[in-house]
Amino acid sequence: MRMGEGVEWGLHCCLTLAWLDSEQPVPTARLAAWFDLPPAYLTKRLQALVRAGILSSTPGIKGGFRLARPPERISLMDVVTAIEGPEDAFRCTEIRQRAEGGGAPEREFRSPCGIATAMRRAELAWRRELAGQTVADLMASAPGGAAARTRRHYARMTG
Amino acid sequence: MRMGEGVEWGLHCCLTLAWLDSEQPVPTARLAAWFDLPPAYLTKRLQALVRAGILSSTPGIKGGFRLARPPERISLMDVVTAIEGPEDAFRCTEIRQRAEGGGAPEREFRSPCGIATAMRRAELAWRRELAGQTVADLMASAPGGAAARTRRHYARMTG
Repeated sequence: MRMGEGVEWGLHCCLTLAWLDSEQPVPTARLAAWFDLPPAYLTKRLQALVRAGILSSTPGIKGGFRLARPPERISLMDVVTAIEGPEDAFRCTEIRQRAEGGGAPEREFRSPCGIATAMRRAELAWRRELAGQTVADLMASAPGGAAARTRRHYARMTG
Repeated sequence: MRMGEGVEWGLHCCLTLAWLDSEQPVPTARLAAWFDLPPAYLTKRLQALVRAGILSSTPGIKGGFRLARPPERISLMDVVTAIEGPEDAFRCTEIRQRAEGGGAPEREFRSPCGIATAMRRAELAWRRELAGQTVADLMASAPGGAAARTRRHYARMTG
């Protein structure tokens, strides 16, 4: 089971945009250069974040991306869901219904399988943890000086 | 992010083997017919469970699989890890080290990135939940009569 690399990219871009807190939108090309990422793939991920209401995008030559809401209101769950989709990692295909020679009474299949329920409970624990952490928390736990360094670097890039 | 279907297969096979609690090992062909699964793919998954010490296998015409330890000692985490591997779903590729124009002091990279730490915390919550549930719990939460029905069906299959 593997999460796409887009989640790491998306989270770092959100954190960087939060630090820049800029009136000016930041173009993909600049974020891609910043993290040495392939611009076309990065754009797809950033567009997924726009669709989820996490980033806003401005078209045009001076266009780009910025946070669509305050960092306190962007959870890690929001970013993961926007990029990986809302589905659980475990998907029950109801192989239990084929089992036991079809001898189980139909009403047993109205409630979910115990295996699916147990797997779901674990995914909910994971989601709860991700939902409880925001981009603002990432900012707070970053090494001292990271914010100022980010802004200085961006000023050099654009200056 | 998607878990392979082998996790569902593996968990149902463990539950079935626990119910049969048989001295006789159960051949893959029979488990595959039971759940209408492709035998070759199922064998691969069952072999992964053998490597993890969850099942034991007996070779030969009368060979097959049985639980290698009591259902109380097989957690959902054991089965998921055996089939999906022990790696976290989120893997940090340290794109932070390419960031900010390389201006961050090296010592900052000795401790893990805040993003990786936050993602790790969520995976640990998921693992904790899976580790806390065993095949014996699945047996206990199954519909009444499932165990007896399973044994009757198997007796018909083999008889």
